[in-house]
Amino acid sequence: MHTVTGATAATGADGARPAPPLAALGLDIGGTKLAAGVVDAEGRVLSFTVTSTNPEEGPERGLERLFGLGRKAVAESGLGWERIGIVGIGSGGPLDTTRGVLIAPPHLPGWRNVPIVALAEEALGLPVALENDATAAAAGEHRFGAGAGTRHMVYLTISTGVGGGTVIEGKLYRGASGNGGELGHVTVDCAGRHCRGCGRKGCLEAYVSGTSIAERAQEAGMGAVTAADVVAAARAGDPVATTVWDATTDALACGLTSIVNLFEPELVVLGGGVVSGAGEQLLAPVRDRVRAESMAPAGGAVEIVQSALGDHVGVVGAAVIAFDRLGSLHRPD
Amino acid sequence: MHTVTGATAATGADGARPAPPLAALGLDIGGTKLAAGVVDAEGRVLSFTVTSTNPEEGPERGLERLFGLGRKAVAESGLGWERIGIVGIGSGGPLDTTRGVLIAPPHLPGWRNVPIVALAEEALGLPVALENDATAAAAGEHRFGAGAGTRHMVYLTISTGVGGGTVIEGKLYRGASGNGGELGHVTVDCAGRHCRGCGRKGCLEAYVSGTSIAERAQEAGMGAVTAADVVAAARAGDPVATTVWDATTDALACGLTSIVNLFEPELVVLGGGVVSGAGEQLLAPVRDRVRAESMAPAGGAVEIVQSALGDHVGVVGAAVIAFDRLGSLHRPD
Repeated sequence: MHTVTGATAATGADGARPAPPLAALGLDIGGTKLAAGVVDAEGRVLSFTVTSTNPEEGPERGLERLFGLGRKAVAESGLGWERIGIVGIGSGGPLDTTRGVLIAPPHLPGWRNVPIVALAEEALGLPVALENDATAAAAGEHRFGAGAGTRHMVYLTISTGVGGGTVIEGKLYRGASGNGGELGHVTVDCAGRHCRGCGRKGCLEAYVSGTSIAERAQEAGMGAVTAADVVAAARAGDPVATTVWDATTDALACGLTSIVNLFEPELVVLGGGVVSGAGEQLLAPVRDRVRAESMAPAGGAVEIVQSALGDHVGVVGAAVIAFDRLGSLHRPD
Repeated sequence: MHTVTGATAATGADGARPAPPLAALGLDIGGTKLAAGVVDAEGRVLSFTVTSTNPEEGPERGLERLFGLGRKAVAESGLGWERIGIVGIGSGGPLDTTRGVLIAPPHLPGWRNVPIVALAEEALGLPVALENDATAAAAGEHRFGAGAGTRHMVYLTISTGVGGGTVIEGKLYRGASGNGGELGHVTVDCAGRHCRGCGRKGCLEAYVSGTSIAERAQEAGMGAVTAADVVAAARAGDPVATTVWDATTDALACGLTSIVNLFEPELVVLGGGVVSGAGEQLLAPVRDRVRAESMAPAGGAVEIVQSALGDHVGVVGAAVIAFDRLGSLHRPD
């Protein structure tokens, strides 16, 4: 039996239940990449490994590769399986966290009603928890990242799509449905751009996702470019790219101001590929404008910072979910 | 000593502390009207009385009239003062609920840093709790109104301005600042109408408040009309009024969809003068559109209903706040 802290040692020592596991295996299913990592109870990433998702190969082959990646992460962690008692999985929704099923995630076309928790428990022989990936990431940043110690925090991730999660009164918010809030689908302009994610008009995601930035750049005459190309060209002073980029930060500031006005968080953490690629080129104008325009009575004192966990946020978040939901369970064996 | 329920009788019977008060005096400070009512612990309104605010007379005269109105409500309630142990006050913010101070509410021009809780405690000889009026109204609808029994609820009030409050996991949400969310200041169109409430562009309040409806009607050529005139003319088939009204319900549906996407409530309760005046002429199109467009994974199953407390919501909400914050305190005498 292994113990993590004095407090958990005391729990283990009473003989009634085993000590919590030393570490968790976190698995993250993105539309482009699968990631796996072993994370200990203090948030240290002991191993981290990534491969491509290839969702078109279907769920059976995809999960085989995911679980293989998890085994690789454990092997590289320096810990034996007996020290890793639990597994957390993060994925884009819609999903059913109670039944442990991926319902029909748009980033995994063709994966419908996949009982991923049962399949993972069978394959890995450990208890498994499933969570919306953005909710899990919010939990990760709150526990071990930029939001540690805050009571009210919003996490927004901007990459292929836009998602996020919230912490309210120190607790992860899951909403009446258990899926948490859809932070990418707050309106910027109700008569604006078509939103592929939800079908209505003018959502935040329709302006600031990597996909949308590239689309708007193409419409502005930049040709077939990526969001990263737009960021680089704007930084170099290209006038068309600057216009596209300014519209991006304007839309993000607008959407974020709505989010801040509704939740009144003390901290907003921004993560995802677009944010890590642009850094202060994105954060500085957005921070200034949200602070100037939001109604938070603290006088615009909301903090807006970049994710501290970076590429690890998915697996750390999934591990935090596993610790929270499964950390005190008995091992099934 | 009077007791309210078996549970509180048990508390009272131990001799250590008196039973909670039988009823609370609720006071509501609107920009147009002051209201006072005595509300018992089961939400029954035992008395209700209203007068005009006349905020231009200043806080001293205004509070004198408010406290006089409260005394009248107690006299008309059939209860003696000894049965009314506590007072709740609701007002538009910004206010400091901890220090009990109205900071600078825009609906009360010239009232700055008014220590209303201390003044009310001195005038009425009872413990007093202060709360943002929309937050208090949300508490009232959740405890005794349309939201009774729900875990996740949004209350939106549409009258001169637009405000609201949220209940999350069965608890009133106050945000990091203690002022709750500013539900009127979610964006409908980031390049849209100037919002008088916050100074930025395109907030929900700038389209659907009574003030904004009247302004938009005037701009559309209807002359100096009220929101109620627009509702009546649209109902009678007037084409200009219909255009103005449809834009109103469109904007409300858009803003409410953002709110539903962010909070994922099971229920939205709409109150305030514009809602009670228009009824299903407002609720039906908004309900259809929010259900069709929101991403709540329950399949658009969010319920959208009218306030059950109507004109009483302010005093009932203030009374609920008083019960929650002061219900177990000793009387100061």
